[in-house]
Amino acid sequence: MKIQDYLKDKKHLIDEYLPSYIKDKAIPSPLKEAMLYSLEAGGKRLRPILTLSVLEAFGQRAEIGMEAACALEMVHTYSLIHDDLPSMDDDDLRRGKPTNHKMFGEATAILAGDALLTMSFQLIAQSSTYTSGHKVELLSLLAEAAGAEGMVAGQTVDMESENMDLTLDELQSIHERKTGRLLEASVLFGAILANASEHDLAQLRAFSRHLGIAFQIQDDILDVMGDSELMGKLAGSDEHNMKSTYPKLLTLDGAKEQLARHLMLSKENLRKADVDPVILEGIADYIVNRNH
Amino acid sequence: MKIQDYLKDKKHLIDEYLPSYIKDKAIPSPLKEAMLYSLEAGGKRLRPILTLSVLEAFGQRAEIGMEAACALEMVHTYSLIHDDLPSMDDDDLRRGKPTNHKMFGEATAILAGDALLTMSFQLIAQSSTYTSGHKVELLSLLAEAAGAEGMVAGQTVDMESENMDLTLDELQSIHERKTGRLLEASVLFGAILANASEHDLAQLRAFSRHLGIAFQIQDDILDVMGDSELMGKLAGSDEHNMKSTYPKLLTLDGAKEQLARHLMLSKENLRKADVDPVILEGIADYIVNRNH
Repeated sequence: MKIQDYLKDKKHLIDEYLPSYIKDKAIPSPLKEAMLYSLEAGGKRLRPILTLSVLEAFGQRAEIGMEAACALEMVHTYSLIHDDLPSMDDDDLRRGKPTNHKMFGEATAILAGDALLTMSFQLIAQSSTYTSGHKVELLSLLAEAAGAEGMVAGQTVDMESENMDLTLDELQSIHERKTGRLLEASVLFGAILANASEHDLAQLRAFSRHLGIAFQIQDDILDVMGDSELMGKLAGSDEHNMKSTYPKLLTLDGAKEQLARHLMLSKENLRKADVDPVILEGIADYIVNRNH
Repeated sequence: MKIQDYLKDKKHLIDEYLPSYIKDKAIPSPLKEAMLYSLEAGGKRLRPILTLSVLEAFGQRAEIGMEAACALEMVHTYSLIHDDLPSMDDDDLRRGKPTNHKMFGEATAILAGDALLTMSFQLIAQSSTYTSGHKVELLSLLAEAAGAEGMVAGQTVDMESENMDLTLDELQSIHERKTGRLLEASVLFGAILANASEHDLAQLRAFSRHLGIAFQIQDDILDVMGDSELMGKLAGSDEHNMKSTYPKLLTLDGAKEQLARHLMLSKENLRKADVDPVILEGIADYIVNRNH
């Protein structure tokens, strides 16, 4: 199966399950509509797909991971809703559609984010298939990845350092917390549910860390390429864009070099785990070669 | 021991533990300051005290419940920070001090709330003393009480019904979700950790539900009395205050009657549980007789 078809299949599955955890619940309007609006707004579903793919790499059925995978996507969705708010990044559009607060107002958008975050923990805690031990491992990892030392810390430092020149280490540290930790949790969720050994967990953690950095470098490169096509030259986009990026700190060629290096390191670590690496390597290649 | 002294002792204990779960963590500025600011702003600490008191009513040590109790207070604190935001209730002061967003700005206030909510789940999931089974029970109950069918639902419906005339059932349903569920969880947290029987859990659930309603009626009565002292007459405060309240729907005497009824029912249910009821009765009386 081609990796594009694999990703499409899995995305379809997640798109189907994700709203099902909300739809039948006694949630008042317009809270329920606001939660579903952003959950159903699409996206690559990269985090939940990683959980399912890791389970399959261990020879397990993907469906085992569905609740854990959808919990991760709920946390990701909540973070986008709150990040888009006027007092944060003040975005009107997300994936070509009005942002949550543009559709439902700020108060409901804040509450929809709060509710999705809370629901992510509920979904795992109330799973009818996971053991208590697995639930506690997943919940602990999710809270750490999403919270004051993880994703929320990343967003805080990202906002604090706007219009500041960052070092490469500082830039990496922001991304590591803002997006890296949740990507890492997505990979580890699959490994935990597959009862992976300590050795395999360590290898997959390293795989996910390099993958996360590669993902972010490619994001930055795509931004620059998009800008440079629009503006006709690269230097203009650097001046235009006050944010620190990998191409800005390393030059475009330097960023591409680092991208290739982290892709290679992620695959190297993956191959040392006792898993079938084919699909996960395909996902890593896809992330690096994507054009949006 | 007088109930006031008991409450003071327990509040002191909670005030001491609560920031300790944040202080040593690698949380960036100003996020950590904003989290601690609201956590340390005081308050009655009613929810965590209930957890500790229920444990003692079962003959257990209060300290067993400290992490669970502090998780509840973190959820309560997050809800106050988000409710105070300009797009919600737009409050500048809370307990006589500037609200979180007045001190740290809206973005950091939103993130501090997000981080406290997430930390509450982390605190329970990573407890070194609770069993996995207990952790899952607590986390499941907490998410349900705080989330889209509980506290967040209550805040949504409360905002939606501003300037509307509510029936008594509608008013009760809002309070039940906005404050009742978390109070109930506070009582049940203690019972779960004490390995209470199904029978005792049911009795304590009924105790906490009547206690929650009594708490809210007294809140409304205090609002009216405060207003009436200021304005010299009761009718004026009704007109002044567009919000539906128990005194508005039942008259002041009718509200006091219901308050006495729910206090009595809460104690009746408490006495049917296999616990020492003295302290919990004292807390119930204190809630009803408090003047702030």
